[in-house]
Amino acid sequence: MAFLNDNYLKLKAGYLFPEIGRRVKAFCDAHPGPAQRLIRCGIGDVTEPLPAAVITALHQAVDELAVRETFKGYGPEQGYEWLRHAIAQNDYRDHGCDVADDEVFVSDGSKCDCGNILDILGAKNKIAISDPVYPVYVDTNVMAGHTGEASEAGAYARLVYLPCRPANGFIPAPPRRHVDVIYLCSPNNPTGAAATREQLAAWVQYAREHQALILFDAAYEAYITEPGIPHSIYELPGARECAIEFRSCSKNGGFTGVRCAFTIVPKTLNAQTRTGEFKPLHPLWLRRMTTKFNGVSYPVQRAAEALYSPAGKEQVAALIRHYLGNAAVLRQGARQAGLKVFGGVNAPYIWVGTPKGLTSWQTFDKILNEANVVITPGSGFGSQGEGYFRISAFNSRANAEEVARRLQALK
Amino acid sequence: MAFLNDNYLKLKAGYLFPEIGRRVKAFCDAHPGPAQRLIRCGIGDVTEPLPAAVITALHQAVDELAVRETFKGYGPEQGYEWLRHAIAQNDYRDHGCDVADDEVFVSDGSKCDCGNILDILGAKNKIAISDPVYPVYVDTNVMAGHTGEASEAGAYARLVYLPCRPANGFIPAPPRRHVDVIYLCSPNNPTGAAATREQLAAWVQYAREHQALILFDAAYEAYITEPGIPHSIYELPGARECAIEFRSCSKNGGFTGVRCAFTIVPKTLNAQTRTGEFKPLHPLWLRRMTTKFNGVSYPVQRAAEALYSPAGKEQVAALIRHYLGNAAVLRQGARQAGLKVFGGVNAPYIWVGTPKGLTSWQTFDKILNEANVVITPGSGFGSQGEGYFRISAFNSRANAEEVARRLQALK
Repeated sequence: MAFLNDNYLKLKAGYLFPEIGRRVKAFCDAHPGPAQRLIRCGIGDVTEPLPAAVITALHQAVDELAVRETFKGYGPEQGYEWLRHAIAQNDYRDHGCDVADDEVFVSDGSKCDCGNILDILGAKNKIAISDPVYPVYVDTNVMAGHTGEASEAGAYARLVYLPCRPANGFIPAPPRRHVDVIYLCSPNNPTGAAATREQLAAWVQYAREHQALILFDAAYEAYITEPGIPHSIYELPGARECAIEFRSCSKNGGFTGVRCAFTIVPKTLNAQTRTGEFKPLHPLWLRRMTTKFNGVSYPVQRAAEALYSPAGKEQVAALIRHYLGNAAVLRQGARQAGLKVFGGVNAPYIWVGTPKGLTSWQTFDKILNEANVVITPGSGFGSQGEGYFRISAFNSRANAEEVARRLQALK
Repeated sequence: MAFLNDNYLKLKAGYLFPEIGRRVKAFCDAHPGPAQRLIRCGIGDVTEPLPAAVITALHQAVDELAVRETFKGYGPEQGYEWLRHAIAQNDYRDHGCDVADDEVFVSDGSKCDCGNILDILGAKNKIAISDPVYPVYVDTNVMAGHTGEASEAGAYARLVYLPCRPANGFIPAPPRRHVDVIYLCSPNNPTGAAATREQLAAWVQYAREHQALILFDAAYEAYITEPGIPHSIYELPGARECAIEFRSCSKNGGFTGVRCAFTIVPKTLNAQTRTGEFKPLHPLWLRRMTTKFNGVSYPVQRAAEALYSPAGKEQVAALIRHYLGNAAVLRQGARQAGLKVFGGVNAPYIWVGTPKGLTSWQTFDKILNEANVVITPGSGFGSQGEGYFRISAFNSRANAEEVARRLQALK
């Protein structure tokens, strides 16, 4: 009998968002009337149409595939050179970050990359994650056998949890103990907090001293509005020796249904073998991508390229302004409802303290039932998320305003 | 210092097709004249434009993404229900195979799925592969730590190799020894051989007796022309208890650059835990997909759906006829060149014995230099591929005819 991967059996319940989906479906089935006024601020999914420049690029690319002379089959697994160049130039070199074209790996999603990166890392790494945290970091480590069993509270043995609380502005400081791999997400999902230059510098220093690897998730960098907040880990000197960065077209270009992201693996980044030799990770990731991936859909890569055109940049900026405008409305609404509010300034997420005496999931059910609004319970992101919930600002302005009103009407 | 995955260091040289790419590029740089008449029959990449029905569906889906009311963000990670239904109905139930809609998992490629399936399997499985074989099966097992080191000849310790030779029609019989997981590919890449019903029945019987898992790669099933050859492993009674099937839109719909595939995981398929309990694999794969994948691009799923429309089916059939017509031309050309020829009847690949005294790579270099044609050296698929080369029939008819002429002109 073939053996299955027992590590999967350690996973607690469902992945957060499918679980929310199940509860919402049950509510809608039971309450067809209220279901019609349901507003979804749960999963962080964009709502506005694709930028016009992207639509044009998609149509053009599709037309190319209709003609033998311009048809494209397999592309380079790591992405077309023109897209890797556009990314490295516009997102990095134009901002003073030293990233070469061939350090950019184009993929179909940051969620995939965050999980798949574990393929090239060893089994012995001591892994640190923030709490609360994007569940994929934890679950993929559980699946890969990097953890022990979960406690009653849902914390997995062998992971090092870094609590994020109001006292540290939801950005953890480096621990005193040694860890090998650190997940950092800034601007943060779910708390909306953005790490300052000083905070990131402390992490880069820690990583250099401990020869640790930072996995830096910058999927929401386009939402940074405050000056001085780094958009890339590579703004920090020394980061090329200790960090991999994940970015996505999902939340700036609205690509959640279109699927394009990228990961930066600097050629100057080493890790150690079992026998203590230092080897670069770049060839391992290249091998992983060429062997286990077949590249992103050609029209999608052309669509991503269009985000870097002058028109595309303007249209993306307008989308960001729209969602951040929603965030301001939601922040004010939640505050006027007497709730404690964080985030929403450099991120499309507002992190809100639950009403007194209610857990995160109780608040989820209350807001679903009374306000017919879907939010995300903070405890779904980790034990330190208990007592909070996340509101996503991805919506129409009218919906954001309506949600703000309904929050204030909660009893 | 973070640890890397040492298993990657066991991998031999590059993945086959990047290596071919490097040699071809070196040739073209050194011989700009002959480079202009180069014909590529190496990598199995389609050359003809997408079917008209697919182009229409892509444009329509892109237009939906341009309007708020019809915009689509995140879809179900495992694929939209309408696509899963179209696949299960058209590819399986219409042919008498019992496959439910929710046993279909839509992905961005069979190469990805073949590699990723190892995520849900344990580390202790004894794994059998054909030789020659699609390199991804081997390399992904090396990466996952399921093998020892490679021998001089490139064979990895702990893998069970099943030789495919003219004597067994390039389809191996089940071994006498016990194995837990078996990779089967029919119609076969690279040999072009297709397993008969009797051959597959023997494998299903073996798998049932040994409680083993068959990973059945049917990416080329659309090329089967001979009656009685199974298109799906599920045509065999009992296969739902022992087999996962991989299929792709790449080689029938021409989706190599568009990216859509699917994998069937029957809910009746179990594997064992470390402690010997039987558990279904379906929930593990569902968890893997929802946690480490974000679904296939929406326009691409609509494009895949269009392959199942009446017009789409006709257009796919015309594409298959075209490529199989090429295969016939190439078979004849190679035979008239005095070479031993296999395959090309139920598959778009022709498997050819090398000219006397030449190895596979020597033949690759000879045909590249003298005929300016790119083929794939058989030894790139395993030690039993030595003495053979593969010609891909994916080309224009004019190119296929020209390649046939040039093969006959070889000295």
